[in-house]
Amino acid sequence: MSTEITTSTVNQAVSNTLSDEELALVDAYWRAANYLSVGQIYLLDNPLLAQPLAAEHVKPRLLGHWGTTPGLNLIYVHLNRIIRHRDANVIYVTGPGHGGPGLVANAYLEGTYSEVYTGIEENTEGLRKLFRQFSFPGGIPSHVAAQTPGSIHEGGELGYALVHAFGAAFDNPDLVVACVIGDGEAETGPLAASWHSNKFLNPAIDGAVLPILHLNGYKIANPTVLARIPDTELESLLRGYGYRPIVVSGDEPPDVHQQLAAALDDAFDDIASIQRAARSGEQTERPVWPMIVLRTPKGWTGPKVVDGNRVEGTWRSHQVPLAATHENPEHRAQLEKWLRSYRPEELFDQQGGLRSELKGAAPSGDRRMSANPHANGGTLLHDLDLPDFRDYAVPVELPAAETHEATRVLGTFLRDVIARNPDRFRLMGPDETASNRLSPVFESTDKVWLSRTEPDDDHLAPDGRVMEVLSEHLCQGWLEGYLLTGRHGLFNCYEAFVHIVDSMLNQHAKWLATSRELPWRRPIASLTYLLSSHVWRQDHNGASHQDPGFIDLVANKRAEIVRVYLPPDGNTLLSVADHCLRSRDCINVIVAGKQPALAYLGIEDAIAHCTRGLGIWPWASTATGEPDVVLACAGDIPTQETLAAADILRRELPDLAVRVINVVDLMRLQPPSEHPHGLPDNEFDALFTRDKPVIFAYHGYPWLIHRLSYRRTCHAGMHVRGFKERGTTTTPFDMVMLNDLDRFHLVMDVIDRVEGLASRAAVLRQRMADARLEARRYTREYGEDDPNISGWTWAANERSER
Amino acid sequence: MSTEITTSTVNQAVSNTLSDEELALVDAYWRAANYLSVGQIYLLDNPLLAQPLAAEHVKPRLLGHWGTTPGLNLIYVHLNRIIRHRDANVIYVTGPGHGGPGLVANAYLEGTYSEVYTGIEENTEGLRKLFRQFSFPGGIPSHVAAQTPGSIHEGGELGYALVHAFGAAFDNPDLVVACVIGDGEAETGPLAASWHSNKFLNPAIDGAVLPILHLNGYKIANPTVLARIPDTELESLLRGYGYRPIVVSGDEPPDVHQQLAAALDDAFDDIASIQRAARSGEQTERPVWPMIVLRTPKGWTGPKVVDGNRVEGTWRSHQVPLAATHENPEHRAQLEKWLRSYRPEELFDQQGGLRSELKGAAPSGDRRMSANPHANGGTLLHDLDLPDFRDYAVPVELPAAETHEATRVLGTFLRDVIARNPDRFRLMGPDETASNRLSPVFESTDKVWLSRTEPDDDHLAPDGRVMEVLSEHLCQGWLEGYLLTGRHGLFNCYEAFVHIVDSMLNQHAKWLATSRELPWRRPIASLTYLLSSHVWRQDHNGASHQDPGFIDLVANKRAEIVRVYLPPDGNTLLSVADHCLRSRDCINVIVAGKQPALAYLGIEDAIAHCTRGLGIWPWASTATGEPDVVLACAGDIPTQETLAAADILRRELPDLAVRVINVVDLMRLQPPSEHPHGLPDNEFDALFTRDKPVIFAYHGYPWLIHRLSYRRTCHAGMHVRGFKERGTTTTPFDMVMLNDLDRFHLVMDVIDRVEGLASRAAVLRQRMADARLEARRYTREYGEDDPNISGWTWAANERSER
Repeated sequence: MSTEITTSTVNQAVSNTLSDEELALVDAYWRAANYLSVGQIYLLDNPLLAQPLAAEHVKPRLLGHWGTTPGLNLIYVHLNRIIRHRDANVIYVTGPGHGGPGLVANAYLEGTYSEVYTGIEENTEGLRKLFRQFSFPGGIPSHVAAQTPGSIHEGGELGYALVHAFGAAFDNPDLVVACVIGDGEAETGPLAASWHSNKFLNPAIDGAVLPILHLNGYKIANPTVLARIPDTELESLLRGYGYRPIVVSGDEPPDVHQQLAAALDDAFDDIASIQRAARSGEQTERPVWPMIVLRTPKGWTGPKVVDGNRVEGTWRSHQVPLAATHENPEHRAQLEKWLRSYRPEELFDQQGGLRSELKGAAPSGDRRMSANPHANGGTLLHDLDLPDFRDYAVPVELPAAETHEATRVLGTFLRDVIARNPDRFRLMGPDETASNRLSPVFESTDKVWLSRTEPDDDHLAPDGRVMEVLSEHLCQGWLEGYLLTGRHGLFNCYEAFVHIVDSMLNQHAKWLATSRELPWRRPIASLTYLLSSHVWRQDHNGASHQDPGFIDLVANKRAEIVRVYLPPDGNTLLSVADHCLRSRDCINVIVAGKQPALAYLGIEDAIAHCTRGLGIWPWASTATGEPDVVLACAGDIPTQETLAAADILRRELPDLAVRVINVVDLMRLQPPSEHPHGLPDNEFDALFTRDKPVIFAYHGYPWLIHRLSYRRTCHAGMHVRGFKERGTTTTPFDMVMLNDLDRFHLVMDVIDRVEGLASRAAVLRQRMADARLEARRYTREYGEDDPNISGWTWAANERSER
Repeated sequence: MSTEITTSTVNQAVSNTLSDEELALVDAYWRAANYLSVGQIYLLDNPLLAQPLAAEHVKPRLLGHWGTTPGLNLIYVHLNRIIRHRDANVIYVTGPGHGGPGLVANAYLEGTYSEVYTGIEENTEGLRKLFRQFSFPGGIPSHVAAQTPGSIHEGGELGYALVHAFGAAFDNPDLVVACVIGDGEAETGPLAASWHSNKFLNPAIDGAVLPILHLNGYKIANPTVLARIPDTELESLLRGYGYRPIVVSGDEPPDVHQQLAAALDDAFDDIASIQRAARSGEQTERPVWPMIVLRTPKGWTGPKVVDGNRVEGTWRSHQVPLAATHENPEHRAQLEKWLRSYRPEELFDQQGGLRSELKGAAPSGDRRMSANPHANGGTLLHDLDLPDFRDYAVPVELPAAETHEATRVLGTFLRDVIARNPDRFRLMGPDETASNRLSPVFESTDKVWLSRTEPDDDHLAPDGRVMEVLSEHLCQGWLEGYLLTGRHGLFNCYEAFVHIVDSMLNQHAKWLATSRELPWRRPIASLTYLLSSHVWRQDHNGASHQDPGFIDLVANKRAEIVRVYLPPDGNTLLSVADHCLRSRDCINVIVAGKQPALAYLGIEDAIAHCTRGLGIWPWASTATGEPDVVLACAGDIPTQETLAAADILRRELPDLAVRVINVVDLMRLQPPSEHPHGLPDNEFDALFTRDKPVIFAYHGYPWLIHRLSYRRTCHAGMHVRGFKERGTTTTPFDMVMLNDLDRFHLVMDVIDRVEGLASRAAVLRQRMADARLEARRYTREYGEDDPNISGWTWAANERSER
C-alpha cells in the first residue's frame, strides 16, 4: 500500500523503488518516446536533427495532440518495466486516443511497427517516414486507431475506454488490461457508468483491469471536473466506485518515476493477491481492486511559455503548442530546443536505431504491449462449438397455423451454445434477457453477479455467462471489448433503446472497416444484435418504446460491414442466428418478436428461405404465373398482416393473381453494386415484376425500403407501409391500424393500385374500411383486440376449404 | 442534520417530526394515491368497490408497473407537506416514469387532472373513467408522459431524470426540483454523469435540485448495483459526487413517514441556508447539497406472496403482481383484499370525491406540483429579446470572393443574444464553443464554473451563460430541462458526436409531438442544434469524427417537428439562426462550417434565399431559360465544389446551359404532403426541371436526398454525391475526392449524364480525371492542398472575364 490520495507530497517510502540505473533507463526510454511523438507532430525531414532545423523540415499543416502524450508515454514505459519484472501479460487501452503519436512511438520503439509495416524500418529513413506519415495525406490517422499495433480501442469518441478494458478482461484470467482514462473522458456518461463494471468481474476466472485516471487537468479549452474537486471528494468517489486509489502526483520526472514505479508494484501485487485468494477459494466476495490516479502536467516537458502565454500545464498544450513553426523562426527555434531537450543523441545511434542499451527497457515478443495477441483478437479466435440449430426447430405442419415465441425458440439454441462454449461466449442485455424470452439460457447458466445475493434472486452467480446491467452502453462496450480480443457474443436489447448506442455502433463499424483493410489484423467475430420487444408489440410501454430506426442507422454504414435480418418466425430466427454466430468482421442486426406469433416455415424450408434471403411463398400466393400484384413483407408483424390480407384476397377476389414475397435479408433489396448481398436486377425483376404494383409491408420506417430499392425497375409502382411514428400504449392490432399497416388497409392498397380493380372491388374496399372502424370500436370498448382478428390463422381457412 | 447513511435503524431524534394528526393525514393521503394507482392498473369498473369485485370489473389486459409506484406516492405526499409548510415552489421529476399511475393519481387527488381533462370529474364516474383510460386503447400511456400534468419528463427511456432536473433549476432561483432516481436508472451512463451537474449549479442565481435516490432494490428481473454495494461504498460514492446523503430506510409506514418528514425538513433547511449564504455573498464556494437515499421495499403495501412466491420487496412486483385477476378467482380475491387494505371508505366520500379533510394534505393552486407552471414551461415562456441579425452580416460585394468563418459570424450575434437575455438563454456545448469558433460570445459572458479556478483558466465564472462539459448527454439533457421549463438555448456540437444523443433526441421529439396535441400544454422554444466541425473538415481528427448521419435520424421523426438547415455561408447562417431562435415546439438542426469558407450572399440576398429555403443562383448559372443540366447543392463544402464545377463548365463548355440551385432548407425537397415545408410539385419541377439531369452535391449520406425527392418528376435523372463513409485524417480537398464530391468529379458527372456530351467533351473529361490524380499527388507530396484548388474563388475568374 503506497501513497493515499489525500497527499500530493512525495512519500519517502517510495522514493527508492527504482535503482539509479533503472531510473535512468526508464527516463531515457520515456524521452525517446516523447521525442518520437513530437517528431511525428512536427517533422517532415531531418528526423534526428542532424542539421539545424529549417522551415522545409517542418510540416506545413500541424495536426496532432501533444497535451496527453507525455503522460501516455510515461505510463507505457512504466508498464514495460512491470511486464519485464513479472513476465506480466498486459495490454494498454488508451482512453485519450488522440494522443496517437505516443502509442505509435512506443510500437516503433518496440520494433513492432517495423514488423507490421515493413516499409518503416528502424533507421533514420524509417524515422523520417514514421514522422512524415503521421496525420499526413495517405498516411496514418492522428488518433490511436485500428492501424495502431497493440490497440483495441479508437480514441476519437470519448467514453468507452474502461468498458472496453473490462470486456477484454472477461474470461482472460492471465491478462491485465491497463486502461488510461483521461479526465476529459471521465466526464462522459458511459465512462462514469463503466467504473461499476468491477461488480461484474470475477477474479477467479477473469483477468484484471487496472484503471489509471490521468488527471492532467484540462480538456480542449477548460479544466476538468475531476481535476478541480477537492482531493477528499475524488478519493471518496473512487472508493465509492469500489476501488482503492493509489495517487501519483508531481511535476519532477525523477520523483514521479519513483512514485509511479512504486504505485504499479503496489497495484500488481494487489491484483496478484486478489486473484490468488479468489482462485484458491479463500475469498469469494467482490474484492476492492486497486487503481492509480496520476496527476501530472498537461503537455509535460513541452514548451513552458509560447508567445507570452503559459502552455505546459495548461489547456493551451492540448494540440500543437507551437502553431507556426513553418512560418515563424522563433517558434521553430523553440521547437528545436524542445526536441533537443530530449537529448536524441543519447537515445538513437548513428543509423537512427534505438540504442541497444535502451532496448532492454521494453519487453520482447508477445509480451510487448504493441504485439500482444489479445490486442489483435482475430489471432486468438476459436470458432464456436455450435450445436445443430435444426435440433431446436419447432414443428410446422401447416403454415400460419400455430404460434410460438420466436425468441424463446432461439433461447433453447443459445442455452446449448453457452453450455458448449463456457470460456468464449457471453450474452449481454440490459436487464431484459428474460423479458425478451431468452430465459431457456438459464437452464445452462446464470447472470454474472459478484455482489451480495438474497433468497429471491433469480439465477445470479459469479461465473454466469449472461451479463445484465441497466446500461446499453455497458452491454455494448463489454461486448465490443470481448469480441475485439477474440471471443464471441450476442447483445439482446429492446429495439427502441438500442439507439442509446448509435454512436458506439458507428465507431465499431469504422473500426471494422479499417481492420478489413489491414492484412495483419485478423478477422474477429461479428457484433450481433438481437432486437426484440420491438415497435409493434409495446403493449405495456407505448410511445417511448417505439422506434425501429436503428436499422436506418446501420444501413448508413459501409455495405461490406452491415447485415440486417428480419426473420418472420422461430425457425427462420434459428437459421439466421446460426449464420450470424459464424460470421466475421460484420455487424448483424436481427429483429425478432418475443410475443406468441405464427410459425410459417418448417426448418428445412426456413433454411432454404434464409439462404436465399427472400423469396416467394407459393402456398400463400394465388398467382401461378405473372401476378397482378405483389404483396411483399419483412418482419414478423408485417408478415402476419400481409398473409391475413392475402387470405382475404384469395377468398374475396379469387381471380386476382397475388404473389406473396417474404424478405428476411433486407440488404438483398439493394443492387449488387451497392451491397454484397444485393440481388441481381434480373432476379429482382423476376420476383417483384418489372411493372406490377408492389405493396410492401415493412417493419420499420417505410422510406428505407424506397432507399434500398429505388434503382429497381418496379420502383415507381412500389408502395410501402411501415411505421409512421404513430404509437401509444394500445393493443397490437390498434398499433398496426394507427400506421395503416393492417390487413384491411393492405387490401385497400391493393384495390387502389391494381389497375381496374377500384370499380370492381368497391364494395370490398368499403367493407375493409368498415372492418377497421369496427376493430377500433371493439378495442376501445373491450380493451383488447377482437379475437377474430388476433386469433387469425391462415391454416384455419386453408382447412375449411379442403 | 439527521440520519447518516451508515445506519439503517430508526433515529429516535426524528421519530416525532410529524404529530399524530399529521402522520395520520400523510398516511391516509398516501393510501389514497396507492389505491388510485392500483385501481388504474386493474379496474374497469366498480372503482370504489361498492360491490364485491367481479371478473367484469377487471381489465382483460393488465398493463402497468406497480413496483415503483408506492415509493413515488410516498415521496409525493411528503413533498406536499413541505410545500404547504414552507410555501415552497417545487416540481417533481419522476425518473421511474413507468410508475405512471402514481403521478396520475396525485394529479387527480389535487384536482388538477379534472381541471385539465374536464371529462374526468372528481366523483365515482370520474374515478371509473380515470381507472379505465389507463394503459387502455384510446386512453393514456402507462408511463409518466406529456399527458401527465406536472411532468417535464417522460419516464420511458431511463437515464435523464437528474439532468432534466438540473436544466429546470438553472436560472429559476426560487424553484426546488425534486428528482426521484430509481436504482435501475442509476446504472445508466447519463445518470451516472448527471450527479456532477452540481458543479454547474450556482446557488446565487439558480434554484435547487433535490435528488432522491430510491433504492427499492430491483429492476425488471435483477437486483440493482447500488442497492447491493456496502452502505459505506454507497455513502462514499454520493459524497464523492459532492452531496450529503440523508438516509431514510425501513418497511414500517409510520416509522418511514417520520424519517422521511425529518429528512425533507433537513434537506429543505439546508437548501435554504445554502442559498441564503450564496445570495448574501457570504459563501462563494460550491456548496455540498443535500440529497436523500430512500430505501423501501419494491411494491410496498402490495401482495406479499402470490402463488407461493414472494412478491412485495422483490423484483416480482415490478409490473402487475397479480397477473390473472380476470380469470383466476383467487388472484381476484387477493386484488380485492389488497385494494380494501387501503380502506377506501375512509378516503373517499359517498360521491367518490376525496374526503375534504384529506384535501388539506395537498397544496393548492400553482403550488400543486401537478399544476406548477414550471412544468408547463410554455406558460412562462417569454420571447427572446433578439438584436437585428442584419447588423452582424458580413459584407459580400462579389459572391465567392472572400472567406469568413461562418460560425464566428454567428458568434457575434449570439454574443448579443446572450447580453440581452441574461436570465433566459444558455449556450451548451461539450468543451467546443471556442473550437466551433463561437468565441465572440466570451465578450459578453463566461463559462459556468463553480469549482476552483487557476490563473490560466479562460472565461470561467459562476454566472456564465455558456455551459461546457465533456458529455453530450449532459449538454442535451440540461438544455431539454431548460427549454421544457420555458427558456431558450442552443446546443453546439461536433457533428459526428451528436449521435451520442440520438436516443435523447428521439424521446424529446416524441414529447413535442404529443405536447402539440394537448391544448393545455403551451408551446416551448425549439431545441436547436448547431452542428459544426463537420464531416468535411476533420483535418485533425479523421475517421472517428466523420459522420453526417444525425440528419437522417432527425428526418425519421414526425415531419411537423423537424427542420434541417444547411446554410452555405455566414449570412445565411445568421438568417437561419434567427429563424430557429424564434421557432416553437420544433427540433432544428443547423449544419455549418467553422473553417474559413467562401461567402456567397449579401445579407438581403441571404434573407430572401433562406426565406425561400432553396433557389436558383442566377449569377452562378449559365442557363437563362431551360437548362441542360441542374447542379444542386446543400451544405457549405458541396456548395463550394458545385460552384467550382460550374466555374469550370462555364469556361470550358460555354454553350452548356447550367442551372445552379442551392438548398438551405432540406425539407423543401419533400412534397407538401410529407412535410409542412415541402415545395409544391409544380414549383419543384420549375426549379429542377421535369426531365433534365440533376447532379446533386449533398453534405451527408446521398440516399437521404433520394428519399426526400423520390416522388418528384425528375427523380429518375437525379444523381447524388455525398459522404460515402470514406474518410481519414487528410486535407479538405482529399476528403471530397475520396467521396467523389469534388469539383472535377462533378464536371465528369455532368459530362456522363447530359445527353450527347460524352463524346463532345471527352477531352475535358480526361482532363478532369487527370486533375484529380494531380491533386492527390500534390497533397501526398506536400501535405496540403494545391493552393490553386484551395484558393479557388468564383470572383477571380468573374473579374478576369470583365
